[in-house]
Amino acid sequence: MEPYIHKVQYYETDKMGITHHSNYIRFMEEARAAFLEQIGYSYHRMESEGLVSPTVSVNVEYKKPTTFNDIIKIEVEIQKVTVVRSFWNYKMSVNDEVVCLATSSHCFIDNNGRPISSKKASPALHELLTSLAKEQ
Amino acid sequence: MEPYIHKVQYYETDKMGITHHSNYIRFMEEARAAFLEQIGYSYHRMESEGLVSPTVSVNVEYKKPTTFNDIIKIEVEIQKVTVVRSFWNYKMSVNDEVVCLATSSHCFIDNNGRPISSKKASPALHELLTSLAKEQ
Amino acid sequence: MEPYIHKVQYYETDKMGITHHSNYIRFMEEARAAFLEQIGYSYHRMESEGLVSPTVSVNVEYKKPTTFNDIIKIEVEIQKVTVVRSFWNYKMSVNDEVVCLATSSHCFIDNNGRPISSKKASPALHELLTSLAKEQ
Amino acid sequence: MEPYIHKVQYYETDKMGITHHSNYIRFMEEARAAFLEQIGYSYHRMESEGLVSPTVSVNVEYKKPTTFNDIIKIEVEIQKVTVVRSFWNYKMSVNDEVVCLATSSHCFIDNNGRPISSKKASPALHELLTSLAKEQ
Repeated sequence: MEPYIHKVQYYETDKMGITHHSNYIRFMEEARAAFLEQIGYSYHRMESEGLVSPTVSVNVEYKKPTTFNDIIKIEVEIQKVTVVRSFWNYKMSVNDEVVCLATSSHCFIDNNGRPISSKKASPALHELLTSLAKEQ
Repeated sequence: MEPYIHKVQYYETDKMGITHHSNYIRFMEEARAAFLEQIGYSYHRMESEGLVSPTVSVNVEYKKPTTFNDIIKIEVEIQKVTVVRSFWNYKMSVNDEVVCLATSSHCFIDNNGRPISSKKASPALHELLTSLAKEQ
Repeated sequence: MEPYIHKVQYYETDKMGITHHSNYIRFMEEARAAFLEQIGYSYHRMESEGLVSPTVSVNVEYKKPTTFNDIIKIEVEIQKVTVVRSFWNYKMSVNDEVVCLATSSHCFIDNNGRPISSKKASPALHELLTSLAKEQ
Repeated sequence: MEPYIHKVQYYETDKMGITHHSNYIRFMEEARAAFLEQIGYSYHRMESEGLVSPTVSVNVEYKKPTTFNDIIKIEVEIQKVTVVRSFWNYKMSVNDEVVCLATSSHCFIDNNGRPISSKKASPALHELLTSLAKEQ
């Protein structure tokens, strides 16, 4: 998989002179969307199949500050997939130095906001994510 | 009408040490929503009536920088209402010193995204906004 | 301590119709700043004493979605304080229903970005935070 | 000049299902920064020379909504340069359809926040911007 690249924008910095920590949650989303697009299962495709995958948890460890114009490389991997949740890992680095480590988990809901099993809702997606998961 | 108060948050500042200019567009939305709530026609009510009012234009003049913890007082008024658009004015000040002057305009669309006349879609809202407009 | 109140803004929602999950990190910062202000040790005072306290980690569990106009009550407490870090807990609820549980930790750095002991940098702040911590 | 490309992110949408209008102000900043980098005068270089260029005004006309995953092409040009301000134009389009037209203006200040003449502060930058301006 191609790592995702995010270039830090001026509006993403704060008065400490560094990238505001809330933005890393957004970079994770960008990287996750790009990952899903790469494997042929974009959010758009999911949504067209009546499937939405809201975030259930995030854990972020900020290792080093970044700032305007920094090129953040984000490596994404799927840790585990169950019928109700997917678990993701993120490693962000600038010039090969780790700046942030993070995980997130996501459930699956239908268009009415009800939790559903990904296996039932989209067996193809479930299988694809499972095949890519680190923990089988 | 009560002026709207926004206290500048840390995450709204940028590395220049000041409130990032894009955020004023958000403060305008906050103030507009609070204004509509005050007159008894909240976004929620509009949306429940199948009416949405997207932003068509904004003009912002930044007069003085603000920063973290500043208490911005936002005075809102309706300049004019036509059947297809409403026009709004904003005056933002900190300690009675003007920091930003702005205008915005908004159209009305239905749930399918089609432009509609506010007069037809919600005569009550149209009349209310018109009665409050500076330009009759 | 007074709980902190955040009213969800339109621009904080996403196309799922709910508050975007990244914003809760910002609500945590708002609540933390208000907490520090309440105990008489605002960010401003910290910064005027040459002390900055960047975020080192966040953990967020999203329990229930919130949306535009929801009034989120945020209860903050200090879990623990060491010489190099403070640990915080957050409980967010809407109409007494928990919507989000979170923790964060923060280090102390001086104006040159070097980590410092809060005990040395500001004994008064260190003592105050410690006296309020759940874990003594 | 290469047009700047911004792919709309999920967190940039709102509950109307479209890109929140405040974000276009941010796209303008991204495009302006990329433009300055292309001509060899990045914000970084400006700041290293003690020059900062805050936004003084923005005007935005939203022509068509955009949404998640849309590829926005942003064409930037300098309209005019005076000793105290630069004036910029932006044309944003998706699949060759104009979605947004905007202008912005920016002054120059030194590290102490005092307005300065770009001609004095950085004759090279002043000349470069002037040579690229539509209005001579």
